[in-house]
Amino acid sequence: MQAEYDNQNIFARILRGELPCFKIYEDADTIAFMDIMPQTDGHALVVPKEQAVDLFGLSEAGAAAAIKSTQRVARAVREAFQPDGMVITQFNGVAAGQTVPHIHFHIVPRYADQPIRGHAREQQDMAVLKEHAERVIAALAKLPA
Amino acid sequence: MQAEYDNQNIFARILRGELPCFKIYEDADTIAFMDIMPQTDGHALVVPKEQAVDLFGLSEAGAAAAIKSTQRVARAVREAFQPDGMVITQFNGVAAGQTVPHIHFHIVPRYADQPIRGHAREQQDMAVLKEHAERVIAALAKLPA
Repeated sequence: MQAEYDNQNIFARILRGELPCFKIYEDADTIAFMDIMPQTDGHALVVPKEQAVDLFGLSEAGAAAAIKSTQRVARAVREAFQPDGMVITQFNGVAAGQTVPHIHFHIVPRYADQPIRGHAREQQDMAVLKEHAERVIAALAKLPA
Repeated sequence: MQAEYDNQNIFARILRGELPCFKIYEDADTIAFMDIMPQTDGHALVVPKEQAVDLFGLSEAGAAAAIKSTQRVARAVREAFQPDGMVITQFNGVAAGQTVPHIHFHIVPRYADQPIRGHAREQQDMAVLKEHAERVIAALAKLPA
């Protein structure tokens, strides 16, 4: 759980704009985008800009910024997708299911009638992800500041 | 996900001191204790004192305090149990697996050689929990302020 930060990891490259993402939110400390292998419809990720592998390497300020953005994006996902529940998860270490070595928070809507898919298993259709991102962005725009 | 707060829920009663717990940490905004139905050894809970059912009902300050305590307790659990990974989860709504309607964060160590047990399934022996709590408390005492 204490590997050094690899600045070629996929989220580092997204943060530098070298790879695309379906971005739904950004502020000074975090960005959020749709998970391209969503476990359910509306699965989003909040990624601190701070270079940290996991929660143990993240600063206290970075953690506060991350949970603030997670709350905000989760509210928008809830508005956009009207799920029956919502799981927030944050994996530290390969043994815990972490697949990208840059700290991130998962926002996973749960639907009573939709089983959860495996983590990081199956890529969603890009047109579907784009439409889902647009729904979350529209919901974010309507949230109170 | 938006039920009104029930002040008879088990965590409300623990917060009021009406029920016991294996407490490992407390500050002005949060307490932490061992999960009595641990999914793995060292499974701990961080509970904001704020009366909120879920992440949607928690204030921004309450969320910042919760993740700060979660980071701190997770570091101590890591020191005490030396797991291979660590999962942080926060369930919102029965459909998401939330079993107590008061916001809480799970800290679940993962061990390469130990499968994860079901959530809220099997009560751990009290003597084992007490010993585990003591290990986390000892590790917390050694963390830098």
